[in-house]
Amino acid sequence: MKSHTHYLWFTTKQRQEIIDITEQVAEQVRESGVAEGLALVSAMHITASVFVNDHESGLWADILKWLETTIAPWDAKRYRHNETGEDNAAAHLRSLTIGHEVLVPITAGKLDLGPWQRVFYGEWDGQRKKLRIHRRRCAVSSPTSHGPY
Amino acid sequence: MKSHTHYLWFTTKQRQEIIDITEQVAEQVRESGVAEGLALVSAMHITASVFVNDHESGLWADILKWLETTIAPWDAKRYRHNETGEDNAAAHLRSLTIGHEVLVPITAGKLDLGPWQRVFYGEWDGQRKKLRIHRRRCAVSSPTSHGPY
Amino acid sequence: MKSHTHYLWFTTKQRQEIIDITEQVAEQVRESGVAEGLALVSAMHITASVFVNDHESGLWADILKWLETTIAPWDAKRYRHNETGEDNAAAHLRSLTIGHEVLVPITAGKLDLGPWQRVFYGEWDGQRKKLRIHRRRCAVSSPTSHGPY
Repeated sequence: MKSHTHYLWFTTKQRQEIIDITEQVAEQVRESGVAEGLALVSAMHITASVFVNDHESGLWADILKWLETTIAPWDAKRYRHNETGEDNAAAHLRSLTIGHEVLVPITAGKLDLGPWQRVFYGEWDGQRKKLRIHRRRCAVSSPTSHGPY
Repeated sequence: MKSHTHYLWFTTKQRQEIIDITEQVAEQVRESGVAEGLALVSAMHITASVFVNDHESGLWADILKWLETTIAPWDAKRYRHNETGEDNAAAHLRSLTIGHEVLVPITAGKLDLGPWQRVFYGEWDGQRKKLRIHRRRCAVSSPTSHGPY
Repeated sequence: MKSHTHYLWFTTKQRQEIIDITEQVAEQVRESGVAEGLALVSAMHITASVFVNDHESGLWADILKWLETTIAPWDAKRYRHNETGEDNAAAHLRSLTIGHEVLVPITAGKLDLGPWQRVFYGEWDGQRKKLRIHRRRCAVSSPTSHGPY
């Protein structure tokens, strides 16, 4: 059996940003040599998400707007967590709503996604307080496989 | 180690519909011969969900109403994604909220679910524009196992 | 290959409660002897969640308030599910929003979490009607591993 773990790092320009990471995940699956198995793609932060959806910029704008207007408005005064000196409680709630990981099946050595499915990293609190660029991490684990390699 | 992938196809009568697929998943687990492992059940669409919850029709009605009134109203004008000619941005947001996959533990050759847990396919945008019946796909992967077979 | 399943039981004092179970999960990973693999942590109830986020009590209060005010108010009259004699439809919707399971990568024999990530059990309907203490269950499965043990 084969196992492979790789850490991807992202630098976002905006504080909230959606990045298509499908090619980077597919590259790690090739690297792993896994033919049949699973790729776990998991954000290592509590204010970020990993999700599968559509590569369409209008939809990405909809997601960011929906997170702000419907799911968890940023409004720092609304949350007790922000009494710790943070202002990012809303980013935690957004991470909980969309989730922080996906598991992509690997079939015949490839990501077994539907025709429109792509893998995304959603940064809900990048580029921290002082607007410095903040690199954030995501892990790809491809822990199962079978057959000869 | 054993690995098994199977694609389930669904034909929904309503545009939004919740289908109990527990028996179909259990059948694929038996088919796989996996005794101890995991069954990944994953929608291959970006406007659908797979989730674990209760087999109770009142609750299913509550879920559909809640998605419309609280999570993401269908209202096509609200979303930029719909400027592409689609009207289904809300279905994408519903898929993100509930998620598109679950991982069910397999113990002693069976789905290791709690007493009330069942596996569901949630179709949030079936029966597309022209009201034709639309078959949609879900994959069951049972990629890990142990012991002699 | 190794596989290990363990059931954790929780007794909550409040009807809604968030419990940090990271140490209990880590202990089961050590117990399993898995060096590289995955730990599935999965609530066996349809009115509970398992999630990864921050160990900060202000945030836990924010999550409980947000579930009540934004995601799914408890208000029993709002839901058809409650016509069955239950009053907990909101707990089902909260479970669907946050999800009922997480998959934690295991690297070099340890939970491969980010610096602030912890694993939580979220009870959304404990301590049932008659205020008796209600023990609830969560499973930790570590079904994949490699190397000699």
